[in-house]
Amino acid sequence: MSGSVKKLILITGMSGSGKTTLAELFREDGFSVLTMGDVIRGLASERGLEPTPEVLGSIAKGIREEHGDTAVAVKCVERLGGMEEAVVVIDGIRSLAEVDVFRGSFKGVLVAVHASPEMRYERLRERGRSDDPQDFGTFRERDLRELGFSLGWAIALADHMLVNEGTLEGFRGLYKGLLERLEVG
Amino acid sequence: MSGSVKKLILITGMSGSGKTTLAELFREDGFSVLTMGDVIRGLASERGLEPTPEVLGSIAKGIREEHGDTAVAVKCVERLGGMEEAVVVIDGIRSLAEVDVFRGSFKGVLVAVHASPEMRYERLRERGRSDDPQDFGTFRERDLRELGFSLGWAIALADHMLVNEGTLEGFRGLYKGLLERLEVG
Repeated sequence: MSGSVKKLILITGMSGSGKTTLAELFREDGFSVLTMGDVIRGLASERGLEPTPEVLGSIAKGIREEHGDTAVAVKCVERLGGMEEAVVVIDGIRSLAEVDVFRGSFKGVLVAVHASPEMRYERLRERGRSDDPQDFGTFRERDLRELGFSLGWAIALADHMLVNEGTLEGFRGLYKGLLERLEVG
Repeated sequence: MSGSVKKLILITGMSGSGKTTLAELFREDGFSVLTMGDVIRGLASERGLEPTPEVLGSIAKGIREEHGDTAVAVKCVERLGGMEEAVVVIDGIRSLAEVDVFRGSFKGVLVAVHASPEMRYERLRERGRSDDPQDFGTFRERDLRELGFSLGWAIALADHMLVNEGTLEGFRGLYKGLLERLEVG
């Protein structure tokens, strides 16, 4: 089975900016979405392991140690080779190096989602996942840790920037405008 | 003369994103704008030197060598101490460390201006300053060099993001919306 992927829409942004919401909008419109986490889950499944957070974390750590910081992106590219869709959305880009990996094999447009630190903090508090920060200091530390992977570079060099600070309806409007500019709608 | 500055509007963004245009819109509305370059020009004037690019470059390099990467921001803060305006716009923030210097003394809201690499490259080509890049490779190198000063971090953590990819009229609309949100209009 040879792949027929023609174009990637690469989504990046800080925690709580709305990356997953954007991916969800694409999915509702019938686009195929691959999240970096899916790839790790796929590896767990191949190895016959339950996809617990511990197992997934350990697999991600293992392949990064073995193949470097862009290992997950490389695994994604391998999976894309077997996909039939013309356009695939990739959620969870965390560095410019990952962007370069995808662009080494496909035409990739980079979309950043932005929201202010204040708003992202509020959202993460509301979401309340077990790994979400409990206070602003911890949140700020996590932001800086994530930026250490050159996430800020990827955001600064995005081809499209969606500012997600209003309602979901407003964000859907920005998403529709993006589809038109990408000419994939 | 004791200062009475209450709030700073800190402008950041990549080359060609439209920082100066935004500063100009603030200026037209009567806001006081301090550019990081002005501070260097002020130092040249104090020393009785002509503000040629060579002289300004040499002064900037000198004070950074003497006082570290945030030296220009520190000089700006000194100048702000003698200013009477309640709100001052600072143009040309290049790192998160500079943001921290300003926020050490004032309430500062960080505004990033964004445009895609493609659009910024076109603009810089049209502007055609002598120090503007002649080809995309040189432009990309300069982007990465600027990002090395943690400019990407400042952009990623901006309180407000203005996407400057349409007309000047459209950008003016975003500016007006920003004034409302900042409650300084």
